[in-house]
Amino acid sequence: MSKAIILVMDGLGDLPDAKGYTPLSAALKPHMDKLAEEGATGLFSAIGEGMVPGSDTSHLNIFGYDHAKYYPGRGPLEALGANFPLKEGDIAFRANFAIFDYGKIADRRAGRLSTEEARVYAKYIQKLKVAPNIEALFQSTVEHRGVLVLRGKNLSPNITPTDLHVNGILPKSVPLDPKDKDAKRTAEALNKFTKMAMQQLDKAKENKPKKRPVNAIIARGAGTYSKIPSTYDRFGVRGACIAGGALYKGVAAYVGMDVVDVKGATGTFETDLKAKGKAAIQALWSHDFVFVHVKATDSFSHDGNFEGKKNMIAKVDKELIPVLLRGNCHIIITGDHSTPIKRRAHSGDPAPLLIWGPDVRRDGSLKFDEFACAKGGIGHLHDTELFHNMLNLIGKAQMVGT
Amino acid sequence: MSKAIILVMDGLGDLPDAKGYTPLSAALKPHMDKLAEEGATGLFSAIGEGMVPGSDTSHLNIFGYDHAKYYPGRGPLEALGANFPLKEGDIAFRANFAIFDYGKIADRRAGRLSTEEARVYAKYIQKLKVAPNIEALFQSTVEHRGVLVLRGKNLSPNITPTDLHVNGILPKSVPLDPKDKDAKRTAEALNKFTKMAMQQLDKAKENKPKKRPVNAIIARGAGTYSKIPSTYDRFGVRGACIAGGALYKGVAAYVGMDVVDVKGATGTFETDLKAKGKAAIQALWSHDFVFVHVKATDSFSHDGNFEGKKNMIAKVDKELIPVLLRGNCHIIITGDHSTPIKRRAHSGDPAPLLIWGPDVRRDGSLKFDEFACAKGGIGHLHDTELFHNMLNLIGKAQMVGT
Repeated sequence: MSKAIILVMDGLGDLPDAKGYTPLSAALKPHMDKLAEEGATGLFSAIGEGMVPGSDTSHLNIFGYDHAKYYPGRGPLEALGANFPLKEGDIAFRANFAIFDYGKIADRRAGRLSTEEARVYAKYIQKLKVAPNIEALFQSTVEHRGVLVLRGKNLSPNITPTDLHVNGILPKSVPLDPKDKDAKRTAEALNKFTKMAMQQLDKAKENKPKKRPVNAIIARGAGTYSKIPSTYDRFGVRGACIAGGALYKGVAAYVGMDVVDVKGATGTFETDLKAKGKAAIQALWSHDFVFVHVKATDSFSHDGNFEGKKNMIAKVDKELIPVLLRGNCHIIITGDHSTPIKRRAHSGDPAPLLIWGPDVRRDGSLKFDEFACAKGGIGHLHDTELFHNMLNLIGKAQMVGT
Repeated sequence: MSKAIILVMDGLGDLPDAKGYTPLSAALKPHMDKLAEEGATGLFSAIGEGMVPGSDTSHLNIFGYDHAKYYPGRGPLEALGANFPLKEGDIAFRANFAIFDYGKIADRRAGRLSTEEARVYAKYIQKLKVAPNIEALFQSTVEHRGVLVLRGKNLSPNITPTDLHVNGILPKSVPLDPKDKDAKRTAEALNKFTKMAMQQLDKAKENKPKKRPVNAIIARGAGTYSKIPSTYDRFGVRGACIAGGALYKGVAAYVGMDVVDVKGATGTFETDLKAKGKAAIQALWSHDFVFVHVKATDSFSHDGNFEGKKNMIAKVDKELIPVLLRGNCHIIITGDHSTPIKRRAHSGDPAPLLIWGPDVRRDGSLKFDEFACAKGGIGHLHDTELFHNMLNLIGKAQMVGT
């Protein structure tokens, strides 16, 4: 029992509806309730008390990496999640195919073009020389999304994005500090890429028959990639990641965990939970801990869909938990943050937390939900504390002093 | 009631056995349970959440000294505990008498020679000149153990130990960083001492009749001694220490507490608990707080002896607590860490905590054990928070701001 599974249901925590129920408290989840009864519960705030965690920062902390020290920006994490071979010093961005019209961005998702279409357009802009010593590298990912990387010396992520999350703007980047020469050089390189990408896409034969050609790339989330010590280097433990979403795979890869690709793991309600569970059990053989991510709970929250979130939790309870129990290891269940249905956005409310296994002090919990967890024996864990508790649970925590 | 006793049962916290019991929850301890009923309970993690505390670092935090700032290494604390008169800048080590044979350490405890024998051998190596400006000073303590001090200018503790906790090695020290001149000088001084000690011990007439002569000293836990502000300087309180083990006395002396030697305080199951209790009551007259340490709970844990730990707790309840109650003061009972029977090692699980006295808000606790404490009204204290709560309890906490 010296291993652990960390199951994160994204955005799991919620606030009471008019009748006082949260999706978790209303869900039929006999397995999780039994684990609560046999284990202990508490609360978890991935980024400090009352703070609203992002999906990237929260997972860094969940893996034991203080986000204030290790967060590289969203771009590099997305790039790693898309298996882009980043090099030290690369500036990576999240990018979108877009439609440029009358001097402005007319549609920042290019009509949500398909993954297959995007792959065809991507070939025109795969690698462009945007300055004597700077290359721009592009890779499409899912639908209109992609990864843009600027590669060269003395580049800086301290520039404004060309994607401001709205239509109707001119995609132009400027340095955050006009005196910052590296940022100036980087903004110019990005602007040059924007221009060159437009020229290349204009030539694309796929655009010929289109009234609204897919003719622009916009970028945001700039960050510098730099290799950091792995969980094995820092804590002596090897971790595996089972997730559908690219970002979670990216964070895991960044901290040196092994990313296991699972067929049918989609990050949606239809995701193959049994396949994910089986992959987790298999990964336990060669790893000290396995992280399993379920995305749909968060997606339903953003859509304000109480029943959808409730049903996803019930589905996890029915299809995933019984498989994970075969791992014969400690099980930790929590959320990376709360995404209350009524807010349709991440919030700073703590996520419910459940820890089960032979080395857990039973605390008399009877259920797993926000209300029971607030009374749980684990108390309220913050930031990287959950990871350190996991290390202790599997006997891998290192002594401080002698 | 403006005074307090802090009773630390070493390694008190534990994990449930197959039937769900810990030694503390299974022990007969009517006094402690009554104190819990009349007071309040909670949890205490001496070194952060999930972290595994050492014996030295945990006690620094218990006395209000942030280990990250004040920890000098184990050597100086052991030396202070042995009443060695350290001077500013001394490099102190824990040392062992050992047997050197065929170019390697053959027995790193020299057959666990007796305290009396060791004292005789120590005379040959009490003070050696190992370099023009460096003296090596040796003092034996208990059995094969002793304290080694290098005294001189520009010395550094950043060197490898000559005792690596295993037999079969050549005792040779090197600087951790080859470019560090002070560390190089110190490693050379230590190696010279090793050589000179061998020469001196070889000559010892006590070794003449022996087949395996006691002929070497090996050292570890290097640290620089530097005087730090006392608890009186920092917090305006005078503390006394009642302990059997040298390390605990050493930490107390380091922070300027008065160390009271108690006849019969041995740090074992047979320790004279009544004598320790009486000494504590007496020390209360001239001190604001008195720290009482009980070691055997930890020793039984390291041996995996559930019954021994349980019986030691019952013995403390029966023999020590009634005496402490005569002090008419606040009483705090906790552990410096958990040492679960099933792990036979320190763990990062929080220790149970009990605070009793007139200025404590009763929290409805009915028992003193890991399970009740997880629900206690004090919540979960970390690091130096317990000490600050003690200061507040006795009305000595200083206002922050005005």
